[in-house]
Amino acid sequence: MKPDGNIPAPAVRRLSLYLRQLELLWADDRQKVSSKELGAALRLTDSQIRKDLAYFGQFGQAGVGYDITELTTNIRRILGTDRTWNVLLVGAGNLGSALSAYRGFAKRGFRLVAVFDSDKKKVGKPLLSNPELVVQHIDMLEDEVKRREIHLAINAVPAEAAQQIAHRLVKAGVKGLFNFAPVNLDIDADVAVASVDLAVQLEQLSFQVSMNQSIADAEKTRKKRRKK
Amino acid sequence: MKPDGNIPAPAVRRLSLYLRQLELLWADDRQKVSSKELGAALRLTDSQIRKDLAYFGQFGQAGVGYDITELTTNIRRILGTDRTWNVLLVGAGNLGSALSAYRGFAKRGFRLVAVFDSDKKKVGKPLLSNPELVVQHIDMLEDEVKRREIHLAINAVPAEAAQQIAHRLVKAGVKGLFNFAPVNLDIDADVAVASVDLAVQLEQLSFQVSMNQSIADAEKTRKKRRKK
Repeated sequence: MKPDGNIPAPAVRRLSLYLRQLELLWADDRQKVSSKELGAALRLTDSQIRKDLAYFGQFGQAGVGYDITELTTNIRRILGTDRTWNVLLVGAGNLGSALSAYRGFAKRGFRLVAVFDSDKKKVGKPLLSNPELVVQHIDMLEDEVKRREIHLAINAVPAEAAQQIAHRLVKAGVKGLFNFAPVNLDIDADVAVASVDLAVQLEQLSFQVSMNQSIADAEKTRKKRRKK
Repeated sequence: MKPDGNIPAPAVRRLSLYLRQLELLWADDRQKVSSKELGAALRLTDSQIRKDLAYFGQFGQAGVGYDITELTTNIRRILGTDRTWNVLLVGAGNLGSALSAYRGFAKRGFRLVAVFDSDKKKVGKPLLSNPELVVQHIDMLEDEVKRREIHLAINAVPAEAAQQIAHRLVKAGVKGLFNFAPVNLDIDADVAVASVDLAVQLEQLSFQVSMNQSIADAEKTRKKRRKK
């Protein structure tokens, strides 16, 4: 791996896709795969796949393809998922609870080990959605980050608290933030941030569906007028 | 609104941000806001905001700013969230259950009205995470889409089933898909798709954190060598 920081983000995102496809093939007891077959399954060109992988090293053999186990191991190492990450969650509201119930994180090596909230009614009680976790008071945040060496945090607090919590997390030593609040966080450049706003995504869909409908309606009206 | 289909996607995404900020101001009993103040709160320039809004019409008055209630109403209309959308969910597994518990959708007018799964152990039973919803067999999908005029669907099935389910949803009449499966869906151009893969997002974070660490380590080694 060339740790020069100049790898395009879409290439890194596609690594995740390659990994999932390799895992499906592995589950099918396959041993080799060509960039062509991988590309066909993912609707990408084989040259795209070879180019993406070349950012990270020399994999596979011309004419033979990739060894599935080997490439899987390599991509996991590159993505940093060849280890287990302790992850904390801030916000035990509806979204936080929903996320705590999602087992897809643990499957990928992201282990939710602590949950924080400022609501005294929640503190000290196990999460209904994941009873192994007892909600801790937000004041314990800094201590827990240090004690458990937590580098990744999920921020699922309301918009108005998100920036302040992000600031506290970073100050405590968190290096990557998964932000679910609908705000642009102001964060040090050496901290990684991924943002998802589920309701915004649905809004974008409703916009697109409404827009497509308007276009279709306008088209119909135009055709009707022409007929007259 | 100019339904010409040529509005940049980032401008539409920012509409969602503007809406949230306007709602916060509204909750504070504010009546007017300038593009400058809106920009400062969202870390955007005021000219960006004016440019984005100009795609959709003429809002606000020079020197006076925007009327908060009026702009809120207009943005909701543009985004199609001035109405209630019936939404269905396919997949009552961990992720689907988590999503069904998330109340952020309903708050924005997205009402989850039906849940489908192919697992006979789940069919006919209420969702633990949202007991108002009883899981229906996937064979009922097409009938329900038509009967309840459902235009938006959340696809939370495993990767290997996602394409087939997407195809059935679109054939039944769904116009917008919120896809949580880690696959590139092959879908008609007139159907809107938004994709989120939560585990991929965490993987991208762990990549970035690992990479930043490598860069910092390399820097340290270089400095040490120089000292010798």
